[in-house]
Amino acid sequence: MSKVNRVYLLARRPKGMPLQEDFLLETRELRSIEDGEILIKTHYLSVDPYMRGRMNGVKTYVDPFELNEPLTGGVIGEVIESKNERFLIGDMIEGRLDWADYSLSSGKGIRKLENYREVSLTTALGITGMPGLTAYCGLMNIGKPQEGETIVISGAAGAVGSIVGQIAKLKGLKVVGIAGSDEKCRWLKEELGFDAALNYKEESFYQNLKIACPNGVDIYFDNVGGEVSDAVMRRINYKARIPLCGQISMYNAESTPIGPRVGGQLVTKSALMQGFIVSDYSSQFREASAQLISWVKEGKLTYKETVIEGLENAPKAFIGLFKGENIGKQLVKVI
Amino acid sequence: MSKVNRVYLLARRPKGMPLQEDFLLETRELRSIEDGEILIKTHYLSVDPYMRGRMNGVKTYVDPFELNEPLTGGVIGEVIESKNERFLIGDMIEGRLDWADYSLSSGKGIRKLENYREVSLTTALGITGMPGLTAYCGLMNIGKPQEGETIVISGAAGAVGSIVGQIAKLKGLKVVGIAGSDEKCRWLKEELGFDAALNYKEESFYQNLKIACPNGVDIYFDNVGGEVSDAVMRRINYKARIPLCGQISMYNAESTPIGPRVGGQLVTKSALMQGFIVSDYSSQFREASAQLISWVKEGKLTYKETVIEGLENAPKAFIGLFKGENIGKQLVKVI
Repeated sequence: MSKVNRVYLLARRPKGMPLQEDFLLETRELRSIEDGEILIKTHYLSVDPYMRGRMNGVKTYVDPFELNEPLTGGVIGEVIESKNERFLIGDMIEGRLDWADYSLSSGKGIRKLENYREVSLTTALGITGMPGLTAYCGLMNIGKPQEGETIVISGAAGAVGSIVGQIAKLKGLKVVGIAGSDEKCRWLKEELGFDAALNYKEESFYQNLKIACPNGVDIYFDNVGGEVSDAVMRRINYKARIPLCGQISMYNAESTPIGPRVGGQLVTKSALMQGFIVSDYSSQFREASAQLISWVKEGKLTYKETVIEGLENAPKAFIGLFKGENIGKQLVKVI
Repeated sequence: MSKVNRVYLLARRPKGMPLQEDFLLETRELRSIEDGEILIKTHYLSVDPYMRGRMNGVKTYVDPFELNEPLTGGVIGEVIESKNERFLIGDMIEGRLDWADYSLSSGKGIRKLENYREVSLTTALGITGMPGLTAYCGLMNIGKPQEGETIVISGAAGAVGSIVGQIAKLKGLKVVGIAGSDEKCRWLKEELGFDAALNYKEESFYQNLKIACPNGVDIYFDNVGGEVSDAVMRRINYKARIPLCGQISMYNAESTPIGPRVGGQLVTKSALMQGFIVSDYSSQFREASAQLISWVKEGKLTYKETVIEGLENAPKAFIGLFKGENIGKQLVKVI
C-alpha cells in the first residue's frame, strides 16, 4: 500500500538571506519498505542555523545539500512500519531524516527515545539533543568554566545559547547574555536566571556591556560573530577562552566579511579562540546526555520552544532563524 | 669611583613606525654600588618586536615604558663590581636591564650563564634564551606537532620563527617558512633544512603556498598577522592549531587593523587560535632550556645573528626589525 509523501527539496542555492523560492515542496509516491528498513512518520523537525552552510555548494564539515534533493535535518518521528528487528511499530525515534511527512530508513544513526519518559520528547531536538550537547561540550571542553568567572554569551536566547548560560549558572559563573529583543532579554533574566541580558540593538550596548562586566570577560561563548563579537573582544581578560559555536550574523554574507583583526588582542591577552562542531566530542555524548536529562528532570535547566505548525512552513521557520524570530529552540510540528 | 654611563631613554611615544627621534641617548653619572648590588657592563643587548607594544602608553601583559626613563631589554653582561654574594667579578649574566653601557642590579631576575661553556654566550638572548623558549613552548603547548603534519611559519627567518621550523623538522613535520626576501628564503631552505620557503612579496605567493602545502596546513605558527595570515588561513585543515606568537605587521598600526574575519573559518575547521607570551609557560623553562642547549650542542639546531655594533645604534637595530632587516636574532654589540 503506497503512501503520498510531501518532501522539501533544495530548489536553488540561496544568495544571501534564503528565500521561500529556494525551497520546493514536492509530492512523491512513497515506495514500500524493504527488509531491514523502517518507515517513520515525522512528528517534529528541527531547523538549525548550520543548515545554511549546507545550502552552499561547498564541502565543509558536512556535505552540502544537493540541488533538487530532499533537505535533511533532525527529526522526531514514530515508527509506523518495521522490517528491522531493532524497531517496533510505535517506537518514537530521533535521527537525521528528510524534511518530509515520511522517511524510510535502514535504522542507521536512528536512536530510540527510551529515556524520555520524564522529559518532553521534543527536547530530543533541543535541550537534551544536539543543541544541548553542543552547549555542554563546547562550554566544558573549550570554555573550561571556573566558579566566579564572567561568561558572555551571544545568541543567548537561541537553542544553544540559552542552555550554555544555564549550565554556566549551575557552575557558579556570572552570566551575561546578549540577544536581539527586550522580550528575549526579559526571558533570560527573569526565567533563566541570567545575571544580565543586553539587547545588542540598543545604542548604549557597548556601554551596557562594560557595566555588566566590571571584571572583564573570562569566557565568550560566541554563536553570532560580527559586530557583537567585536564589542565583547575589547573586554576579554588575560587567558580568556572563546568557544566559537556559530557565526549566524555572517552565514548569509555574499563575500568574506571584513572586521577588526583579532590577532593583536589574542596575543596581548594570551587568549584562546576555538571553533567546534558538536561531533568533535561524540565520545562524550552518552555522559553529557545523561547529565542534561537529569538536570531537566530536576528542574535545574529550563527551555522554551518556538513551534511553527505544518511541514509547508518549514522554510519560513528556517528563514526566521536569521531574523531572530525564535526564542529558544525553533521546531516545525508536522503532525 | 664614579663612571660615566650612556643610557637610552624613551623620549617620545612612537606614532606608527618608530623613528630615531623617539629615542634619546643621555649621559649620566653612575652612582656607586650599594650592599647587595652588582654593577654589570653590557656586552650585548637584544632588540625584540614585543618592545614596540611597551612604547605605547598602555598596560598590556608587560608594563609600558615610561617617558624619559631608560628603555630595558634582554642584556648579556659581565659583573665588574659585586656587593652580592651570589655573584663574583667576571661572572657572565643575562637579565632584563637598561639599554646602557652599565646597569646596577640587585641581582633579582639575573641568571648566571654557567651552562654555556659549549655554546656561544650570545645564544642566551636567542636560541637558548627567550626566543628559543618562545618557539619551543608555543610550538609544543599550542601547536602540538604530530609527525607527518604540515606546519607553516610566518616571520620564519626571525629569531623565533627560525627555531620553530627547526624543532618542527626534528619532530618529523613538513616545514614551510614564509619570509620577506629571497636571501632569507635561501637560508631557511639551504641551511636550516626547511622543506619550502616562500617570499610573501612575490605576486605568486598564494599560488606558491598552495603548491607547497598540497595537504593543507595543520599548524600555522604566526609571528606576523595581516595579509600573510589571511592567505594561510584559507588553507588550514580540520582541527588546525594556530599559535599566535606575535603580529609584527600590525605593531605600528595607528588604528585597529581591519581584515577578513576569521570566525567562520575557525568554526568550519574546528580550528584553534591561541595567543601567548613566553611567561605563560615559565614552569617549563628549565626543561625546555636544557633541551635547547642540548640540541645546539649536538648541532641539531643552528642559528644566525645579525649584529649591529655600538650602543648608539640600538634604535636603528630596533627599527630595522619592522623593516625585515634582520636574519635570525638581532643583537646590538655594546662592547
